[in-house]
Amino acid sequence: MEASVTRRLARFAVESVPEDLPENVAKEAARALVNWIGSPIRACRHETTQSVIEAFDEFSGPREASVLGREEKLDIFTAALVNCVSSGVFDYDDTHIATVIHPTGPIASSLLALGERRTMRGADFLHALTLGIEVQCRLANALAAPPAQCDPAWFLTGLTGGIGAAIAVGRILGLNEQQMVWAIGIAAMRAAGPRETHGTMAKNLVPAWAAQAGMQAALLARRGFTTSETPIEGPRGLGYLYATQPHWPALVEGLGERWEMLQNTYKPYPCGIVIHPALTGAMEIAEQHRPDPDAIERVDLTVHPMCLRLTGRRAPINAVEGTFSVYHWVAVALREREIRIRQFSDACIADPGNVALRDRVHAQADDAYRVDEAHVRVTLRDGRVLEQHVEHQLGAVERPMSDAQLEAKLHDLADPVLGAAQVDDLAHACWNVRQSADASTLVRLARP
Amino acid sequence: MEASVTRRLARFAVESVPEDLPENVAKEAARALVNWIGSPIRACRHETTQSVIEAFDEFSGPREASVLGREEKLDIFTAALVNCVSSGVFDYDDTHIATVIHPTGPIASSLLALGERRTMRGADFLHALTLGIEVQCRLANALAAPPAQCDPAWFLTGLTGGIGAAIAVGRILGLNEQQMVWAIGIAAMRAAGPRETHGTMAKNLVPAWAAQAGMQAALLARRGFTTSETPIEGPRGLGYLYATQPHWPALVEGLGERWEMLQNTYKPYPCGIVIHPALTGAMEIAEQHRPDPDAIERVDLTVHPMCLRLTGRRAPINAVEGTFSVYHWVAVALREREIRIRQFSDACIADPGNVALRDRVHAQADDAYRVDEAHVRVTLRDGRVLEQHVEHQLGAVERPMSDAQLEAKLHDLADPVLGAAQVDDLAHACWNVRQSADASTLVRLARP
Repeated sequence: MEASVTRRLARFAVESVPEDLPENVAKEAARALVNWIGSPIRACRHETTQSVIEAFDEFSGPREASVLGREEKLDIFTAALVNCVSSGVFDYDDTHIATVIHPTGPIASSLLALGERRTMRGADFLHALTLGIEVQCRLANALAAPPAQCDPAWFLTGLTGGIGAAIAVGRILGLNEQQMVWAIGIAAMRAAGPRETHGTMAKNLVPAWAAQAGMQAALLARRGFTTSETPIEGPRGLGYLYATQPHWPALVEGLGERWEMLQNTYKPYPCGIVIHPALTGAMEIAEQHRPDPDAIERVDLTVHPMCLRLTGRRAPINAVEGTFSVYHWVAVALREREIRIRQFSDACIADPGNVALRDRVHAQADDAYRVDEAHVRVTLRDGRVLEQHVEHQLGAVERPMSDAQLEAKLHDLADPVLGAAQVDDLAHACWNVRQSADASTLVRLARP
Repeated sequence: MEASVTRRLARFAVESVPEDLPENVAKEAARALVNWIGSPIRACRHETTQSVIEAFDEFSGPREASVLGREEKLDIFTAALVNCVSSGVFDYDDTHIATVIHPTGPIASSLLALGERRTMRGADFLHALTLGIEVQCRLANALAAPPAQCDPAWFLTGLTGGIGAAIAVGRILGLNEQQMVWAIGIAAMRAAGPRETHGTMAKNLVPAWAAQAGMQAALLARRGFTTSETPIEGPRGLGYLYATQPHWPALVEGLGERWEMLQNTYKPYPCGIVIHPALTGAMEIAEQHRPDPDAIERVDLTVHPMCLRLTGRRAPINAVEGTFSVYHWVAVALREREIRIRQFSDACIADPGNVALRDRVHAQADDAYRVDEAHVRVTLRDGRVLEQHVEHQLGAVERPMSDAQLEAKLHDLADPVLGAAQVDDLAHACWNVRQSADASTLVRLARP
């Protein structure tokens, strides 16, 4: 009899070894890390991060794990929670385009916290990180990428992140196959995340609770805590309850041969990923034509429907809401002609010049567009029209950010917290983590 | 403009005061407590409980809260988790019949843990317990009781318990209305619980994670952590995602006037609630006719369809699975003529006499039956037929357990752990908690 979906997944996670990772896969995991780690460092004192620390600091267990960017430590669960929350604050993390999940957050924050408690070779860290991201992307496909169907009101990172983290942490803990089945099952029972949270601080908690859920699931499974043998595919399990129509081959076929994590992408701009196609076009027009913002009569965008469904906020009132406004960011690109993390701010949202231009940006959805495609049309008051069609946004799989661009993004984020010299060292440690004897070096370099 | 569903709920929770509770409502909350507290005490060293303690003990924060029935303490979140897990081990907790939720677990375990950290008057404890149970029952109705509809694969305690606990803990923390909205929202985003867990240890984690989620939500909200204003009723919120058809009047109409928690019920038998109608009939036949078990040719049950859907296990292999087998428990009633906690055991499941009789029990579902109705027909080998029709199971709202029966249940559970004299004191403290200056007396009496 063929093994069940959950068992096949567990077997893969238990049997895979670091040496199995193809070079390009290991490299992509390092790129995911370089891309990700700047955000929690920069956001380490953001009010969202601060609120979580203040709420839970007094309840902390053994202070074994670092808050990235800061000097204090917390217990491993709380540190993972805080670092995953902070990594989402700027919406500047990674995105698996087919499902719009952000896979690195729950996995990296779990593993980095655990790595300060027990020594973990860099090769094992990178391997576990890869497995966690891989499973998360595949599970998201199995729940939501055609032919699978899932209600878009689910925040898929919350449905998949816990299982990814359970597998990553479970691999480091050396779970056997049966324990891994239980770890998957215990994590699956906490799958959650309504998109109703979007545009509020709570959005960042969804992947962070998933990180905690995954760690705790692996620790319970190690103690023999049992669940169903079929938590994912069973008749009352994850797939049935959360997907309209799951498609399990996307989860388990070709494990270890075809790597879905190669479809993960990184953002050049700190805002909702579905804004990026239009923003890429707006940046190209800004750089090539440098139109005077006051001379712009109107801007017309044509975008995939998901862009407006997720980021169609007309009048955001703060930076958090701004990540859900395609209008705002297109206006910023055309006025300021560069996009850096400093523009993720309430001041940028409130800037009267940005508001005035934003109100002249219009958008229509076109079902025929791919999600990474957009058309930008800028009509000037003198009647001239500037147009740019974007086949693939910058950062798309077909048009990836270069290693140098990822490193520049890390510097943009982390330099004000750590200084450029230490960020150079951190980048070096990330690129070379597979050769490191101790993955906690990463954390040491991510603290002041 | 009328306030939203979430805001009305928050306002009620913030404005209600202990003196508002009608006498019968306060009494029912005390009954819920007497019914509930014996289970975590008795199950304090059960392997399920033990696994959770072993998994998390080394990560505990300040050891301020007790493991009921034991001497050690854990941080408040972990203690609440452990006590809620242990309270579900025997499936002997309470049940809101219309929705089959078990409302006291997440609320009582949260409040008892918090009560050891900060002094809480008994009246405030009982008030918060009442609010938490009330909101949980109402929310479950709004998600799943007709005219609302919800997929029965959801374990509703996991969808509602976190919000109940957030309200109870938030009330004790003195949250204002806006903070209470956020607490509800943060808890709502962690609503989870597939019934795929049923029949495994993990079933008991679902309400326990809800307890933790509620406590943590209230603590985050106190620090100003924001969510949507409409986490329950919003277009991508709890109701939309988890219910097929929510019915919000059941949640918010008549708050403080009509008390849904009066519909909560307590189990005379330590097994799945939907087994109880048939088990009541079997016990009545056993007591009245005392048939020789070997003389029974067959037993025919007619039950509500939910009985077989949830507890139709033909051949349970251990006590946990046994709570989902109507066949097993009917056989035990007819053979042993009493049902006590000692029968919740692997030995009772494996007893050859029980197995032999169990295999002669047959059941059919009848859509016309109410969920608390059953018919039991025992055919003897000599051709005689013994029949009992049960309009309402023992423990139903229409046929409640008496205070004395609840106290006897507490003794049956807790005496072996604490001794009968201390259990007398504990029962007294529960009945009179509203007059107590410090609710933590309950916990002190629930430890050896």
